[in-house]
Amino acid sequence: MMVKEMSGMRMDYVVGIDLGGTNTKVALVGMDGNLVQEKSAETVVERGPEKILAQIVEMIKSLADGSTDNCQAIGIGVPGSVNWARDTVVKPPNFPGWVSVNVTEEIQKLVGRDLPVLVENDANVAALGSAHFGAGIPYSHFIMITLGTGVGGAIIVDNQIFRGQTGGAGEIGHMTINYCGPLARSGVAGAAEAYLGQQFLTHHARLKLVSRPHSVLHQRAERDLADITSKMLYDAAQDGDKDAIEIFHWAGHKLGCVIGSAINLLDIRTAIIGGGTSAAGDLILDAARETVLDFVTPGLHEGIRILREERGNDVAMLGAARLALDFLSGNA
Amino acid sequence: MMVKEMSGMRMDYVVGIDLGGTNTKVALVGMDGNLVQEKSAETVVERGPEKILAQIVEMIKSLADGSTDNCQAIGIGVPGSVNWARDTVVKPPNFPGWVSVNVTEEIQKLVGRDLPVLVENDANVAALGSAHFGAGIPYSHFIMITLGTGVGGAIIVDNQIFRGQTGGAGEIGHMTINYCGPLARSGVAGAAEAYLGQQFLTHHARLKLVSRPHSVLHQRAERDLADITSKMLYDAAQDGDKDAIEIFHWAGHKLGCVIGSAINLLDIRTAIIGGGTSAAGDLILDAARETVLDFVTPGLHEGIRILREERGNDVAMLGAARLALDFLSGNA
Repeated sequence: MMVKEMSGMRMDYVVGIDLGGTNTKVALVGMDGNLVQEKSAETVVERGPEKILAQIVEMIKSLADGSTDNCQAIGIGVPGSVNWARDTVVKPPNFPGWVSVNVTEEIQKLVGRDLPVLVENDANVAALGSAHFGAGIPYSHFIMITLGTGVGGAIIVDNQIFRGQTGGAGEIGHMTINYCGPLARSGVAGAAEAYLGQQFLTHHARLKLVSRPHSVLHQRAERDLADITSKMLYDAAQDGDKDAIEIFHWAGHKLGCVIGSAINLLDIRTAIIGGGTSAAGDLILDAARETVLDFVTPGLHEGIRILREERGNDVAMLGAARLALDFLSGNA
Repeated sequence: MMVKEMSGMRMDYVVGIDLGGTNTKVALVGMDGNLVQEKSAETVVERGPEKILAQIVEMIKSLADGSTDNCQAIGIGVPGSVNWARDTVVKPPNFPGWVSVNVTEEIQKLVGRDLPVLVENDANVAALGSAHFGAGIPYSHFIMITLGTGVGGAIIVDNQIFRGQTGGAGEIGHMTINYCGPLARSGVAGAAEAYLGQQFLTHHARLKLVSRPHSVLHQRAERDLADITSKMLYDAAQDGDKDAIEIFHWAGHKLGCVIGSAINLLDIRTAIIGGGTSAAGDLILDAARETVLDFVTPGLHEGIRILREERGNDVAMLGAARLALDFLSGNA
């Protein structure tokens, strides 16, 4: 219905895409910044870059009644490193065959014209989405942390993405909080991800529960601890299980340490937590709030706040659309 | 001679001041950015803010042949927190009686007119000085770390000081590298300062040497380890003493950890090390260079460099003058 109206009006729009390892989300957003239509589909990563990007263009067309003629710009959030020019992604984790892909060129070929296509790291677009559509609306400066398989991060300064020297800023998950701690997948000892990444967190849970054979989680895992997932942990904690609550508290302590470390460096005192594990919400965040002040120099204590991104994963897709709008208005 | 010429020409100038706990340095800098004259005097911190600021104005007058009439602006670097408006310093460490001092107003009263006076944190002006007069000249983005009694820090983005939300950014010395490490003076466990601050480093040396009664440092300290100073450590290391070298290596490892942590967050890959302890130079820096890559995610490894600020402490005074010039040209 909406689509037909739009198409009848020949309404101009931008597109925001969140290309994730599991799902691809596509949003059509009007030039006024309002969401018009959205669509989600499974990402079959094994199909390789050409087919995945072709699928994205098909998704746009299906939302826009068959053509991309009125599309003014596309923003796309991807996992992995993006270059300064925002056209190429290098080795996105869990995307086999994506060595270095010029996403901008590929999409321009598929739509048959030189449409602006801005590629950006997924945590960065999530932060931009939060700034304009989510928990970040009231704050011009904040740190975004996405807790999921990995631990992503981004920095928003004056409502814009802080990109650093080459576009790679915000890797909060790789900051060490313990130089002799466990190694993360990046090889960094005691990196925040080595505690908070989903596999690391469930690994911690398994070891923690070895000596607690009567725990609820033992029963739910049918006595094989290798079966414990972060969802089981979350459900058990929701049901009041002390062990699960303790494990999230442990994770929140680590989150508080790394947020504190970032606040000292940036003097940016709002942290917004998104991503799948953030569903655990106050189970993790209360512990982080308790811990963070111990890890910030007293002169920067005032106004520190740790919030959850209540809009969930949609902020990445919306932030990607915002990037396209900012580009058209000369702000990005 | 220089001063008379200047005065005869009624040459306009700005002033840069480095107000330290030990010495106060004052520079007269021409509107072209070149140093004209400089002067240093002991800071007698016990005299309190009024007398210390009056002494500064007298130092300016003595350099400028008796008057401040041609002074266009003053920049002043101070230890401690500075507010967003850059006029007031709060509780500079080791300055008794300085609770909250509006330095701008005080100096304006002393010179009898509404001269622009910009107050800035000492590490921030050192970084700005390095960017324009020191090791930072080739780099538009870098992290500055000053190793002395405390561990200061600053971030330069596009040749400007990155100030964060309230002006307090760059507190690298308070970033934790070990959440269960020793407490720094800020109360932060495992803060970089708790390893690298002068007193912490000599404390570490004392404990390290307890079990090495035949060390050179034992002899030089006349067998009372409490006498060990950072200068003794440095001299011993220069003389090839293995224990002293090992202690600086230990310190450099911690420096590498915290630089790595900051690089992940900022994607700023040049670190410039200044301050008193940096005199130990490559003794510390080589260990930091060796360590840093282990604490940065592989995607950000390229182009990482750790340099020493060879211009020493003068960069703070020169950076303060630069701040005054940038203000006059509308860039600060």
